[in-house]
Amino acid sequence: MSPERLHSLLNDLAQGRKTVAETMAQLQRFPVDPVEQAGTIVARLDTQRSLRHGFPEVILAEGKRFDHLQAVVERALSHDADLLITRLSRKRMARLQALFPLLQVAGGSRCLYRQMQAEAGAGLVGVLCAGTSDIAVAEEAAWTARLLGARVVCCYDAGVAGLHRLLAASDLLREAKVLVVVAGMEGALPSVVGGLVDKPVLAVPTSVGYGASWQGLSALLGMLNSCAANVTVVNIDNGFGAGYVAGLINRGAAGV
Amino acid sequence: MSPERLHSLLNDLAQGRKTVAETMAQLQRFPVDPVEQAGTIVARLDTQRSLRHGFPEVILAEGKRFDHLQAVVERALSHDADLLITRLSRKRMARLQALFPLLQVAGGSRCLYRQMQAEAGAGLVGVLCAGTSDIAVAEEAAWTARLLGARVVCCYDAGVAGLHRLLAASDLLREAKVLVVVAGMEGALPSVVGGLVDKPVLAVPTSVGYGASWQGLSALLGMLNSCAANVTVVNIDNGFGAGYVAGLINRGAAGV
Amino acid sequence: MSPERLHSLLNDLAQGRKTVAETMAQLQRFPVDPVEQAGTIVARLDTQRSLRHGFPEVILAEGKRFDHLQAVVERALSHDADLLITRLSRKRMARLQALFPLLQVAGGSRCLYRQMQAEAGAGLVGVLCAGTSDIAVAEEAAWTARLLGARVVCCYDAGVAGLHRLLAASDLLREAKVLVVVAGMEGALPSVVGGLVDKPVLAVPTSVGYGASWQGLSALLGMLNSCAANVTVVNIDNGFGAGYVAGLINRGAAGV
Amino acid sequence: MSPERLHSLLNDLAQGRKTVAETMAQLQRFPVDPVEQAGTIVARLDTQRSLRHGFPEVILAEGKRFDHLQAVVERALSHDADLLITRLSRKRMARLQALFPLLQVAGGSRCLYRQMQAEAGAGLVGVLCAGTSDIAVAEEAAWTARLLGARVVCCYDAGVAGLHRLLAASDLLREAKVLVVVAGMEGALPSVVGGLVDKPVLAVPTSVGYGASWQGLSALLGMLNSCAANVTVVNIDNGFGAGYVAGLINRGAAGV
Amino acid sequence: MSPERLHSLLNDLAQGRKTVAETMAQLQRFPVDPVEQAGTIVARLDTQRSLRHGFPEVILAEGKRFDHLQAVVERALSHDADLLITRLSRKRMARLQALFPLLQVAGGSRCLYRQMQAEAGAGLVGVLCAGTSDIAVAEEAAWTARLLGARVVCCYDAGVAGLHRLLAASDLLREAKVLVVVAGMEGALPSVVGGLVDKPVLAVPTSVGYGASWQGLSALLGMLNSCAANVTVVNIDNGFGAGYVAGLINRGAAGV
Amino acid sequence: MSPERLHSLLNDLAQGRKTVAETMAQLQRFPVDPVEQAGTIVARLDTQRSLRHGFPEVILAEGKRFDHLQAVVERALSHDADLLITRLSRKRMARLQALFPLLQVAGGSRCLYRQMQAEAGAGLVGVLCAGTSDIAVAEEAAWTARLLGARVVCCYDAGVAGLHRLLAASDLLREAKVLVVVAGMEGALPSVVGGLVDKPVLAVPTSVGYGASWQGLSALLGMLNSCAANVTVVNIDNGFGAGYVAGLINRGAAGV
Amino acid sequence: MSPERLHSLLNDLAQGRKTVAETMAQLQRFPVDPVEQAGTIVARLDTQRSLRHGFPEVILAEGKRFDHLQAVVERALSHDADLLITRLSRKRMARLQALFPLLQVAGGSRCLYRQMQAEAGAGLVGVLCAGTSDIAVAEEAAWTARLLGARVVCCYDAGVAGLHRLLAASDLLREAKVLVVVAGMEGALPSVVGGLVDKPVLAVPTSVGYGASWQGLSALLGMLNSCAANVTVVNIDNGFGAGYVAGLINRGAAGV
Amino acid sequence: MSPERLHSLLNDLAQGRKTVAETMAQLQRFPVDPVEQAGTIVARLDTQRSLRHGFPEVILAEGKRFDHLQAVVERALSHDADLLITRLSRKRMARLQALFPLLQVAGGSRCLYRQMQAEAGAGLVGVLCAGTSDIAVAEEAAWTARLLGARVVCCYDAGVAGLHRLLAASDLLREAKVLVVVAGMEGALPSVVGGLVDKPVLAVPTSVGYGASWQGLSALLGMLNSCAANVTVVNIDNGFGAGYVAGLINRGAAGV
Repeated sequence: MSPERLHSLLNDLAQGRKTVAETMAQLQRFPVDPVEQAGTIVARLDTQRSLRHGFPEVILAEGKRFDHLQAVVERALSHDADLLITRLSRKRMARLQALFPLLQVAGGSRCLYRQMQAEAGAGLVGVLCAGTSDIAVAEEAAWTARLLGARVVCCYDAGVAGLHRLLAASDLLREAKVLVVVAGMEGALPSVVGGLVDKPVLAVPTSVGYGASWQGLSALLGMLNSCAANVTVVNIDNGFGAGYVAGLINRGAAGV
Repeated sequence: MSPERLHSLLNDLAQGRKTVAETMAQLQRFPVDPVEQAGTIVARLDTQRSLRHGFPEVILAEGKRFDHLQAVVERALSHDADLLITRLSRKRMARLQALFPLLQVAGGSRCLYRQMQAEAGAGLVGVLCAGTSDIAVAEEAAWTARLLGARVVCCYDAGVAGLHRLLAASDLLREAKVLVVVAGMEGALPSVVGGLVDKPVLAVPTSVGYGASWQGLSALLGMLNSCAANVTVVNIDNGFGAGYVAGLINRGAAGV
Repeated sequence: MSPERLHSLLNDLAQGRKTVAETMAQLQRFPVDPVEQAGTIVARLDTQRSLRHGFPEVILAEGKRFDHLQAVVERALSHDADLLITRLSRKRMARLQALFPLLQVAGGSRCLYRQMQAEAGAGLVGVLCAGTSDIAVAEEAAWTARLLGARVVCCYDAGVAGLHRLLAASDLLREAKVLVVVAGMEGALPSVVGGLVDKPVLAVPTSVGYGASWQGLSALLGMLNSCAANVTVVNIDNGFGAGYVAGLINRGAAGV
Repeated sequence: MSPERLHSLLNDLAQGRKTVAETMAQLQRFPVDPVEQAGTIVARLDTQRSLRHGFPEVILAEGKRFDHLQAVVERALSHDADLLITRLSRKRMARLQALFPLLQVAGGSRCLYRQMQAEAGAGLVGVLCAGTSDIAVAEEAAWTARLLGARVVCCYDAGVAGLHRLLAASDLLREAKVLVVVAGMEGALPSVVGGLVDKPVLAVPTSVGYGASWQGLSALLGMLNSCAANVTVVNIDNGFGAGYVAGLINRGAAGV
Repeated sequence: MSPERLHSLLNDLAQGRKTVAETMAQLQRFPVDPVEQAGTIVARLDTQRSLRHGFPEVILAEGKRFDHLQAVVERALSHDADLLITRLSRKRMARLQALFPLLQVAGGSRCLYRQMQAEAGAGLVGVLCAGTSDIAVAEEAAWTARLLGARVVCCYDAGVAGLHRLLAASDLLREAKVLVVVAGMEGALPSVVGGLVDKPVLAVPTSVGYGASWQGLSALLGMLNSCAANVTVVNIDNGFGAGYVAGLINRGAAGV
Repeated sequence: MSPERLHSLLNDLAQGRKTVAETMAQLQRFPVDPVEQAGTIVARLDTQRSLRHGFPEVILAEGKRFDHLQAVVERALSHDADLLITRLSRKRMARLQALFPLLQVAGGSRCLYRQMQAEAGAGLVGVLCAGTSDIAVAEEAAWTARLLGARVVCCYDAGVAGLHRLLAASDLLREAKVLVVVAGMEGALPSVVGGLVDKPVLAVPTSVGYGASWQGLSALLGMLNSCAANVTVVNIDNGFGAGYVAGLINRGAAGV
Repeated sequence: MSPERLHSLLNDLAQGRKTVAETMAQLQRFPVDPVEQAGTIVARLDTQRSLRHGFPEVILAEGKRFDHLQAVVERALSHDADLLITRLSRKRMARLQALFPLLQVAGGSRCLYRQMQAEAGAGLVGVLCAGTSDIAVAEEAAWTARLLGARVVCCYDAGVAGLHRLLAASDLLREAKVLVVVAGMEGALPSVVGGLVDKPVLAVPTSVGYGASWQGLSALLGMLNSCAANVTVVNIDNGFGAGYVAGLINRGAAGV
Repeated sequence: MSPERLHSLLNDLAQGRKTVAETMAQLQRFPVDPVEQAGTIVARLDTQRSLRHGFPEVILAEGKRFDHLQAVVERALSHDADLLITRLSRKRMARLQALFPLLQVAGGSRCLYRQMQAEAGAGLVGVLCAGTSDIAVAEEAAWTARLLGARVVCCYDAGVAGLHRLLAASDLLREAKVLVVVAGMEGALPSVVGGLVDKPVLAVPTSVGYGASWQGLSALLGMLNSCAANVTVVNIDNGFGAGYVAGLINRGAAGV
């Protein structure tokens, strides 16, 4: 809850407009919408953040039982806010689309989304990835940033073992407010990009690779130890997180 | 074997009521009930503990061949004691229920149980979990504590990235004798809860998460390194262990 | 801050006994005492918890610069509450004692403490350790529990490679409300003790060992994977944490 | 090749009974029988060791393509020696038995074997395991030792969380020449057994467990760090290796 | 090298103002200033970036031989640009200050710096840390951001085990353009802060902790797996990196 | 891009044969052939390297969506150059062969290839492997080296637990320009081979093994720590990498 | 306590020769000799095992405070039994020798010992090590085996990168009842030796190495994954453990 | 021993020029020179390899007791061959130089060497490193390659976060027969260099870095997972190994 809201609540109480009981009730209920199933509260939607302009409600599908997922999606759709569902298997994606035709496929990612007002994006977020196998994660980042209001341009398969391929992205590198760089294997691309630009680089390690890549550990460590000072890192395969922060930085820089 | 029992056995021997051979036989046979299959002893039930009031016989299903599991369950049901079978796949759960109709499903957990006398629970154990995906583990803890005689109240999806959701549990935090807190990903919830209360907090890391959560390592380390002094930890996904110790602490504190 | 306190603050505000500004000030200042040094706030003492009967203020010395440590200790001593300083090197212990003669050495641990009223302990906490090298950690647990009001009995060098040595502790195992079991190397002692009793066992892995003990990893994993259901675990060498929770459980069970 | 054989080869050469070319040919061909498939040598059987009395030819099935496995088994059966095939899936076991009716199932293990002369075993090897889920590995050890000529007695489900269950094995502990102790989870059983006897204890960690057992790492580290001096360790789930060394030690001690 | 510069070089060449040889020389020499010692080039300063307004030349002292370090510092001071030297031991700090009196101590960090024009900072960067032992890393972040032109406000010892301490930072949380959050042990503070604000949170894990904190691994994993979407992470103890990116984001958002 | 080519481009520009715009276009387009699918560039073929004599275009199939894989293969076949597709499942191999009949199966590896001019190989590369289960990786190395123009001889199932089996390879060890040695489990074979020869040994750890082999970690560490000075290592199961470097060394040594 | 002893105790009780109280006292005191210091029992010597012929009392010095160590050594010397003190620093070794002149230096190991009756050893234990840096560990194994009555022959610096060096040990390999093989780095020597002999090989990984040897992890994994079936493993640098088990096997095989 | 030598020995025996005993003696003594100290053979020099032209005898100083090291160096100097001693501390370097004035310091490495005939090197080996802190390891590689007869050119501080610095090495990249690339932190340099050239790249990870570089693990994994096909890897900080293999490849390619 925002400090302003807290101040207003306390004011109402101080001036007798609210009782103590009413105030405590508000403190407990307002920003959370509990979803019940078979007598158990299985989720509590954070209505506060998602109801503000441009912040989507986000549901991580992976690890949830389908009946729980379905109940949460249904409730989220009942709010008039943007929605993003990440990490869906093909099968679950099809089942959800059949149940909720409002949901749209987010490009080559494993996400579904609902956008209330599709405005043209502002600012510019660049999304690069090193190899063909990294595209799904890169798309997750791109679509998340779009839902936060960013204009997004992508450049895929631009890995370090053929640096001339990066030239295709030189305009993008120059104009973007912030860059998302996705790579598996040794995860060297963010270091190289970070050395070429003077803006924040959000590095996303992927689990792409084999053997001693240890499901993304190699790329993760490479990025954390980047010798470029402008690189920060998110979890392995966490395109959503990088896209979200890129959207926030882009907002600040674009003055949206 | 309890010291009292040992003393009594030695007394009988000392006073000639038992021979040496009889005493040694008792020492070897009493508290163990061997289960044989195809000429091999595949399990030895600990009859001593389960026959006392309120301590269930517990069978970990995971990793056992089904024929072994079935033989052990059948024998355990022949004792007049509570029974808990944990970590069942859906398929195994159905097969066991078909074979042994006495077994009941333990809520949203992956367990079956048989309770001889369903009394109202005493004391109060609170079970919290951080996300929807943690519910199965939380339910395992809740039902285990119930089988040890506790009254149990649950509060799910109360993770730290929306602390106001914890307010829903403020009564529970105040009244419980002991809290079980279940969380995956970064596993921060037990630290936050531990900072709010002055009672034992039993933290259960779950394998929920992806990438660098390494199947629960992240949550486990987070909980072991908690800066709250009242937090102790059990194995990843070990709802049973936390529920068991919560039941023991609740007994002591509730004077049961 | 406790719910009662929150309720009372809101009541005062509702009935005009406090202004909004006063209430916000109280919410911000009361339970925290900031320690400043050279213009920087280097610590914020949690005065709320330590001022209640029997909860010591605890200062982890390890990792702090000595000037910071000294400033924090000095401030903490200015409160009329119990105090425990853990993980002191020999040298730091001597320097602090010279500066603050009120501080006493806590047995064979690496701690100093100040106890306002040394009452006889209540209930009973048992502290066992596996080997001679584990004694410092065990003593840290024992003295922490004493500061929380427990009577404590210790039994050292009772490792599993000579189980008959455990017999020396049979009375303790029977009578204690809760047991702290400290072990390095393979960390098997808590499993064995856990199988002998029906009460909570708090397991403390130590960094004692060599080679593939990996500074306590071996003992930690052994305890987390204990086949005894009544075992929970704290961080490596964290005698303080185990003693603290043992003190809490003992309070509940002893009805203190 | 044994030194005696080398000496004899050199003697023949020195005395003109063999040419240099013949000697080099013998050095290259004798103890190895290459198995070819589709123009590629896919295996080289170590005929020397398996042809001596009592040493079985051993084939690790896991990881081999089935056509390679079949070719190797067929060739191995053509030698008049004992044979052991380990780590077979149920399906592969059935396929091999259909192809080669001479092969017999080795109890509850995942092995097939062929024994030329089934003599009564000599000496005594004891095989213990901690839980029901460890039985398959324990049986692999037991049958391997039998193929090396040992008499073997087994005692299963004797874990440390109920030490009285070990009493069932007291005769075995006293009489065996060497003990194989199999355990998963915390892997504490070898330490306890090692503390009770003065003979070699071969510890086999298993991948039984969950969460922070990390597929046997927990048990492995526990055993490597055993505080009992008479414990040595083999790879996770390597019942074969423990049974093999137990057979060797038993031979030495039984004077076979 | 910037695209503008490349374009200009090519233009000169195209119009005959430069020869091919001259162009290649420029491509090779301009943005790099090699530092030689005893006939070996031991460093190549990146003059291009540091000569622009506000980007300091940064020298990581750790791991360098002192004679190499001295040579590099001397050369860097010869450029008219800001300079930051990080990760100095106390001893090296004193030696460098004696040699180069222009260098100033950067608060409680382990850094020295030289700032050409000390302007009042713009925007606002908030730096929080969880415990007293994290201060050195937090100060490194704060001073780095200052060298990039940011106004910086710090709030230390605000860990999650006493959330009311965070209230002291409520103004800062509201007003900052970006937050740097430094924590060791379980590293939960960034998740909690991330859940309270809608701006980028740069999380810095520290090596503060003991036992299973594994020199910062625990905090690092906790932060990477944060359930708050607005958290990105830098290397363990890398206050410099977080301060650098915070400075970049602050520039963008403050319109500097 | 090669320096010669860069020089020539700059020369053209300097002498007015090319405009600045044309030069920049060439710098961006020449050595890369973008593959588009559904409006997204999913791959950028490195045409420069593959068009030179004898360097195949290599496509790692693992991790790619099949539609992406198919598009890339189709484009690659349109160039008149050798092609190698690695890490195909049986199913994908069949699908690709049905679509592109020009592709041939590369022996016992999991690869397909197309070779424009099948010349007799030059020089000599030796490929050894330790066990039957390592053959697929060894074949990948062998066929890669062949595509780089090498004559290749293989010797399989020559592990260290029967050193006399290595004798079969004595000619190969003596005559090869470079050796590829493939092994799983403890990965000791490269050390032994490295001690016998004075030429480069390229060690390939495989994921063959079980338990504490941790999917090839054991073999990888063994090879990295080899006490033989002439051993270098590639990633786990990376037969392609070893074959590629062997091909390069063989070219140099054979004067091709 | 041995079964015979238990039987005799119970017999005495049954026939009235002992009271229950006397029996329980015996059960508690006999085989353990507690060492007290400053009011705390710091160690419990296992008198039972060490008082039998030929089993030394063993004290691990590492990790113990010197005053504790001194007290334990003093008490151990008061028993008429062999004594071995392992893992002494040079400084502690000198201090102990000054205090207890009866103690002798055990060759090139870091041990002191006292042997009551120096008999000529029986049987034969072979101790090999791979490199010069492994000698201290190898000597610990050799002297431990000697204290258990074995004749011991050593062969050092016989690593796999020069297999012809193993020839020096061919007699030893043939005649020993059991082999201890010590190696660091890749730890391949036990596999090679294991492939040459048909007797138990006890492998000791050492922490010798650098980089990715991770203080012995590399050698440990190599030995656990040995493809030779007759290899078992002890903890890193645990020469004592290997020497102890070698002594036990040698006793059995030599019929001592 | 070489096959030619073996053939000749067998010939002598076959034709009666040698007895069996003489032959076996030769097989055992020739290529090994044992170094004894205080009655123990502490090292066995591999005289065969070092006596051939251009292969130095190499002594790894790290981990050896100084008296052992001194004895080995003394013996090695008695042979008329090149000598390289690696990984010397400053102190040991000084002591050895005082004892053996023939030894020379190998540039900025931690090595001493003796070269019998300092010829001008042939071929060309390029040695690059990423940062100033990597120089010692790079120098070890350079001097090792020189002792194997190579001409060596070095280019230091050419890391990826400022790719234009690589331009300084463009001639070297083009002309070298083989490249050694040394880097710590994220270890990305070999991937970038590998993408620029068509020759073998030997990657050396260093322990330079902090935090999650885990003493070189990050660089090691980055290099093993390189997306450039021409990269192979040696152990962390193993400049010697890379220099040795570079020397071998250079010999082959230079036709020396």
